[in-house]
Amino acid sequence: MTPENLLKEAFAAAVEAAHPTKHLASFLPPLPKGRLVVVGAGKAAAAMAQAVEAHYPLDKLSGLVITRYGHSLETQKIEVIEASHPVPDEAGQQATERILEMLEELGQDDLLLCLISGGGSALLCAPDGLTLAEKAELTTQLLNSGADIKEMNTVRKHLSRVKGGRLAERAYPAKIVSLILSDVVGDDLSSIASGPTVADPTSFADALGIVKAYELDNQKVISLLEEGVNGKRPESPKPNHPAFQNVENILVASGQKSLEAAARYFESKGIQAHILSNSVEGEAREVAQVHAAIARQVALYNQPFSKPCVLISGGETTVTVKHKGKGGRNGEFALGLAIALDGLADVYALAADTDGIDGSENNAGATFGPEIFARCSKAEAKSYLVANDSYSFFARAGALFETGPTHTNVNDLRLILIL
Amino acid sequence: MTPENLLKEAFAAAVEAAHPTKHLASFLPPLPKGRLVVVGAGKAAAAMAQAVEAHYPLDKLSGLVITRYGHSLETQKIEVIEASHPVPDEAGQQATERILEMLEELGQDDLLLCLISGGGSALLCAPDGLTLAEKAELTTQLLNSGADIKEMNTVRKHLSRVKGGRLAERAYPAKIVSLILSDVVGDDLSSIASGPTVADPTSFADALGIVKAYELDNQKVISLLEEGVNGKRPESPKPNHPAFQNVENILVASGQKSLEAAARYFESKGIQAHILSNSVEGEAREVAQVHAAIARQVALYNQPFSKPCVLISGGETTVTVKHKGKGGRNGEFALGLAIALDGLADVYALAADTDGIDGSENNAGATFGPEIFARCSKAEAKSYLVANDSYSFFARAGALFETGPTHTNVNDLRLILIL
Repeated sequence: MTPENLLKEAFAAAVEAAHPTKHLASFLPPLPKGRLVVVGAGKAAAAMAQAVEAHYPLDKLSGLVITRYGHSLETQKIEVIEASHPVPDEAGQQATERILEMLEELGQDDLLLCLISGGGSALLCAPDGLTLAEKAELTTQLLNSGADIKEMNTVRKHLSRVKGGRLAERAYPAKIVSLILSDVVGDDLSSIASGPTVADPTSFADALGIVKAYELDNQKVISLLEEGVNGKRPESPKPNHPAFQNVENILVASGQKSLEAAARYFESKGIQAHILSNSVEGEAREVAQVHAAIARQVALYNQPFSKPCVLISGGETTVTVKHKGKGGRNGEFALGLAIALDGLADVYALAADTDGIDGSENNAGATFGPEIFARCSKAEAKSYLVANDSYSFFARAGALFETGPTHTNVNDLRLILIL
Repeated sequence: MTPENLLKEAFAAAVEAAHPTKHLASFLPPLPKGRLVVVGAGKAAAAMAQAVEAHYPLDKLSGLVITRYGHSLETQKIEVIEASHPVPDEAGQQATERILEMLEELGQDDLLLCLISGGGSALLCAPDGLTLAEKAELTTQLLNSGADIKEMNTVRKHLSRVKGGRLAERAYPAKIVSLILSDVVGDDLSSIASGPTVADPTSFADALGIVKAYELDNQKVISLLEEGVNGKRPESPKPNHPAFQNVENILVASGQKSLEAAARYFESKGIQAHILSNSVEGEAREVAQVHAAIARQVALYNQPFSKPCVLISGGETTVTVKHKGKGGRNGEFALGLAIALDGLADVYALAADTDGIDGSENNAGATFGPEIFARCSKAEAKSYLVANDSYSFFARAGALFETGPTHTNVNDLRLILIL
């Protein structure tokens, strides 16, 4: 097998591990003594609901899941409702209210199955003290403030009746199994769909501190959070809340699992695999330089790993687009990597989006070896990078990697094979 | 010992390994049957010449080294001449001519000792076919073209009578020992002072290709290189040239050696050390994100290394300055790292310039642990980063790392300790 084909097969193994329903059944718990109620939200909610219906006797099932417009599938017992993403709408809010009502009825012999996937945060939406419009305004303010996702979630979890473990709190004393498809970099459970079944260690004071530190001009939000600090609103449930003794949060698919699947593939071929990180972020071309520097160290010094080996990394880079070229963040990473590696002997790489589409074109990413500048010089490659035109470079170089849509998403996969 | 002190002692070990003369004697060869002639160029040339004089009987020594203005030291037999850096001047050119004349006289029983350190490329200067002014213009054009250092050197080695192994060629059939202090990222011998004693694998055709690929508007250079392609100018000596059988190029100090000294220090304390790379380049804050992602993977998954351990990296980052804050590339790296690590438990870091001065202020860099946001919040930290004001942040946080000038330079040192 050529090195490039090894890389492509490893990508396929990573995508296979991220399949939204193929592996779901193995995580499903036995039937409870009481009722089995299924709720959920996310892009894959309907597909997950189908898999659940295929596994259990249908007469034991009831429930409701919320998915994006255009993503519903036919189900028999679990109702599927479509709603808006990424900006929440009335449909999502009403469906969420219905889910919250279902939870009220649950007793300690009942089992709540939560099906969580990407987009769940907008679809499962129950603002507390704010209207939908006010909530959207807050999100916009937070996005513009410089607050990171963790800080944004700290605020939002304190203005919601479902996020930050509040769904689990409401279902108490039922047992909860939450099956989670993560598309969040780093797989932080409390970030995926804002962690409806995950205890929230943050407080109203933390949320207020963030709103003040980033100088958000939003008196209503400040007042609500101040009420919380003064004990006039209910705090989100903390890790010692009894509800969480009944909760099992299970990552069914995630970036980490896909990286490990790719690693196992290489190891089955006798190649040592090293997972650098599942949470690489930053400007794609700069991230590429660091990856190249590590690959060079392996190639020239057998540090920090001995050759032959493969470096694996996940996460999600960004591209600051300055020109109108074609291609996505994986293409830009791959082009920056090719330039930085500069034809280093015996080094091969693949960078691709696990959803199969890297940006605007029809390729998942690119794959190349030391001969990458054979058809198109390094000087030309640099011009393509300046133009944010990685797609055109790899098209000319004959190094596009095309898979078609994979119908899953665990962010980026980067593989560097050093022989 | 506190984790921060461990990091500081490891930095000291790295700097000690990079001392320009402390370790020189152990690399000096025995006296030859014939003459011992010492030549050299670079910022440390005079200090190296002093160490050579201290080692051998003075009556056996003669020679000439070129150093930067203000860097000469008193010597007895080896003449020291000062010249201009980074833009070459007449003084450097004339001294280089004298060195070239000395080489003509050498026979096979003689030993040529070359003392090479940072800045040697500008100081050891013998343009071939160009005036000094034309050479300077070419350098400016190359710098603005997008060509990288390797490409620039390919061109310059074909317009010089000393670079690209031509010094060694001229000294043939003498034996040559070249003692090299590397301040070049990655320690590529043919890049340090443009490799006067290192065979040049590149050709006139390569040089011409680069000038054309980057569309340099320089007819004189193109004509000279075309003459070379047509065999009318002498090609630089290739690896199979007999001169290189007599040459020993020895790295006395380098980034890699310093990283290894830091690694040995940690291992003497029972902490596994992993050298990620000696050649990390890129925008400091983006490079920091990748380092944080790897540290997080170690902390959360024991991948790709088991805790406790330390990650070590060298090279030289860059900062695109957008605002008028204080601080250098290591401070900016450290601030970006602190924000990305976000107080991750049991993780400590140091980032510093091995020359002891990181940018414009009096600090070498910064060192911090999980409590870094105790005095100054993460939101404030982000504002300092936006303002390119890492110095002020670490001053407020009480986390500046100050060593004073170390009188050596093997670029940056980054240490991330995960306990």
